[in-house]
Amino acid sequence: MEIKILDKGFVRFVEMLGNDMSAVQAARVSYGKGLTNIKRDRKLLFYLMENGHHTPFEHIVFKFHIKTPIFVMRQWIRHRISSVNERSGRYTEFKEDWYIPEKIRTDDNINLQGSKLSSDENLNSQGLKKIEESIQRSFEEYRKLRELGIAKELARIVLPVSMYTEFYWTINVRSLMNFLNLRADGHAQFEIQEYAKAIAKIFEEKCPNTYEAFIKYNYKGDILKGVE
Amino acid sequence: MEIKILDKGFVRFVEMLGNDMSAVQAARVSYGKGLTNIKRDRKLLFYLMENGHHTPFEHIVFKFHIKTPIFVMRQWIRHRISSVNERSGRYTEFKEDWYIPEKIRTDDNINLQGSKLSSDENLNSQGLKKIEESIQRSFEEYRKLRELGIAKELARIVLPVSMYTEFYWTINVRSLMNFLNLRADGHAQFEIQEYAKAIAKIFEEKCPNTYEAFIKYNYKGDILKGVE
Amino acid sequence: MEIKILDKGFVRFVEMLGNDMSAVQAARVSYGKGLTNIKRDRKLLFYLMENGHHTPFEHIVFKFHIKTPIFVMRQWIRHRISSVNERSGRYTEFKEDWYIPEKIRTDDNINLQGSKLSSDENLNSQGLKKIEESIQRSFEEYRKLRELGIAKELARIVLPVSMYTEFYWTINVRSLMNFLNLRADGHAQFEIQEYAKAIAKIFEEKCPNTYEAFIKYNYKGDILKGVE
Amino acid sequence: MEIKILDKGFVRFVEMLGNDMSAVQAARVSYGKGLTNIKRDRKLLFYLMENGHHTPFEHIVFKFHIKTPIFVMRQWIRHRISSVNERSGRYTEFKEDWYIPEKIRTDDNINLQGSKLSSDENLNSQGLKKIEESIQRSFEEYRKLRELGIAKELARIVLPVSMYTEFYWTINVRSLMNFLNLRADGHAQFEIQEYAKAIAKIFEEKCPNTYEAFIKYNYKGDILKGVE
Repeated sequence: MEIKILDKGFVRFVEMLGNDMSAVQAARVSYGKGLTNIKRDRKLLFYLMENGHHTPFEHIVFKFHIKTPIFVMRQWIRHRISSVNERSGRYTEFKEDWYIPEKIRTDDNINLQGSKLSSDENLNSQGLKKIEESIQRSFEEYRKLRELGIAKELARIVLPVSMYTEFYWTINVRSLMNFLNLRADGHAQFEIQEYAKAIAKIFEEKCPNTYEAFIKYNYKGDILKGVE
Repeated sequence: MEIKILDKGFVRFVEMLGNDMSAVQAARVSYGKGLTNIKRDRKLLFYLMENGHHTPFEHIVFKFHIKTPIFVMRQWIRHRISSVNERSGRYTEFKEDWYIPEKIRTDDNINLQGSKLSSDENLNSQGLKKIEESIQRSFEEYRKLRELGIAKELARIVLPVSMYTEFYWTINVRSLMNFLNLRADGHAQFEIQEYAKAIAKIFEEKCPNTYEAFIKYNYKGDILKGVE
Repeated sequence: MEIKILDKGFVRFVEMLGNDMSAVQAARVSYGKGLTNIKRDRKLLFYLMENGHHTPFEHIVFKFHIKTPIFVMRQWIRHRISSVNERSGRYTEFKEDWYIPEKIRTDDNINLQGSKLSSDENLNSQGLKKIEESIQRSFEEYRKLRELGIAKELARIVLPVSMYTEFYWTINVRSLMNFLNLRADGHAQFEIQEYAKAIAKIFEEKCPNTYEAFIKYNYKGDILKGVE
Repeated sequence: MEIKILDKGFVRFVEMLGNDMSAVQAARVSYGKGLTNIKRDRKLLFYLMENGHHTPFEHIVFKFHIKTPIFVMRQWIRHRISSVNERSGRYTEFKEDWYIPEKIRTDDNINLQGSKLSSDENLNSQGLKKIEESIQRSFEEYRKLRELGIAKELARIVLPVSMYTEFYWTINVRSLMNFLNLRADGHAQFEIQEYAKAIAKIFEEKCPNTYEAFIKYNYKGDILKGVE
């Protein structure tokens, strides 16, 4: 299962540990019991979420393959309770592969760290053209530096943070919920919101009951409610 | 797959994320490549272990169901990079279920924190009898306190640390290797060594190449070498 | 600064990293600025707490020396984002030092994992007497086993979980707040609530503004509100 | 105490928790004792390090203020057991402040991820000129995009990874030693090695005994030995 994000990115589900009921299974050890029937298990699952008993959700683990621009990766990596292996720009040549936004966003005077879509068609075409040209030019410089024999790890310092990178991401559902609370939210940057929505979609498909309980009792963001 | 430990304990393999080659798969992202053939993949796996590139091993995750005495659990829980859900003595009544060692161990004057087996048959029979009686008596007290209506969470304070408990344990292979380095070692207490050896056995069976590389390049203990 | 807890326990403040304004100092890096004046700094501090920007609070770190019964320690240690060094029962002989509750608590039929104080004077005197005798007897057994030369790590298995232990605890304020959310709460066991209240008191004294913001915006428990 | 790194970066010591003997103090709890005399304390400190008892070193915590290029920050941030607050490119305008290397490095055919200094004066002047021009041009584009009113979070995507950023970094000595094992090493990229050496210097000055024991028993890298 792979979801395309932005112009060239993706979120690909690789595999998972456990299933929608694994939190119940783990929690039942606390009561010295195992799974019973779906109705009672579901009841316990919602009880755990409502009462902030989040450790049982650590026994469900997702593994994703992500392709995203460097500036998004820089926000992503701040979530420490997860495992990441990223493609290395020291080993690997950067390809002609970067992110260009679909629309221009201007300063948002309400949310100072955020932005708002511009309706100015002129600004849109002009801005996007400038961004494209600038990145293209930086990449040509990188290529020339490489042709001169300059080391990959050094030549790349001229490359912009819009370049795409890839990584494997393994994260348990407790930490995943925290990621969604922060990134599937209007205060996060637009680009990482797009990824967070895709993660949420895969989470919902693989763990419908856990996801439902999460949205109902633990989700602190504002954009996934709409998704429902 | 379940391995019996001590007199009534066990290590039960529940499920796992990934497989023997998952570290290679994750590491290859660094090189912008995927799996190739077993010979080259195995070569990379050993290279990663030898050179201390341990993050790729975080993408293999094991889930176990453990039954162990409280005093062993107290040592176990110190490994923070893992997920634990333990049976609660506040919810659940303790059953007549505790650990009695097979043999008496006396002070070890070389390893001051350790112990050595006693060859004194008299001491063995006498010591084991005393231990059994003391624990039996404490459990009877617990039962009486419960009969008086005293709360589980309070009545249990008379119970000894030899009582058995159970927990679910989810841990990635990088952290698992660290656990084995510390607990599958002659300096660890005998009882937890027994559990560590069982964990190692399951690890070896599920990930033979990773285990072989671990023992060759990363294992710092002394008892698993003999096992091979 | 040391606070006595239960009959023989304590929470002792050892030292701390940073101060009440360290979160603001760290957060200001995000804005490329340092501290300004107390009024604006306090405003930012409350803003961070209200909006769930908790990472800056990781730059304040507390170190405590704790003495608590083993069954409390077993709950305490579940908080993984902290550093713990506990007195070892393998190195060190246990002393005649255990916890006896002041009052008996019986099963609580509303909160099944909890308990309620008993008003039955007869039950109180009888229950406490039984607990005391049982623990006393177990400790005598431990002493006899030691006299027979049985190793400390083995002899201790007859000791009850009411025995006192000691540990050093280093924890950042973000994790400390989480500890208080779970343990300074009516659902936690009475004994650990007592410790949590002491931790909260020290936190309040050392970081009054941070504590005030915590109680106002982040505290999820029910017993500290009363303290205010 | 501040150490200048590269052309415009720095490592600034902010404050610390504990001191050179804090690991001994924490470890002694295990033995139920406190500090004794420097000779015996030092002996225990070296014993802990030699025998891989690293948890006591978590009770010493350093706080640094770092200024470094984004591509170095990207490597730095992979060390998860630490606390980071970075200046935000969403809140704050980027200044005309980037890294230009002193010398050109070319592909290293032995260490494929690494590089080696070029002795070709022509290549040096030409390469450095190209790098400078490319980054200068990208920054001008950023400035123009900002003048058009394009949001900071979006305009920055054209900026190269050589731009300087700043962050607060709080890390305990156990995790710090791991950082030095990986980054104060010839396999790490030259730029982060420079920072790691500065961190090591401050560590040595603040905790001479701990540092000496680290280098003797725990350090796995190759460049700090020379420093001694």
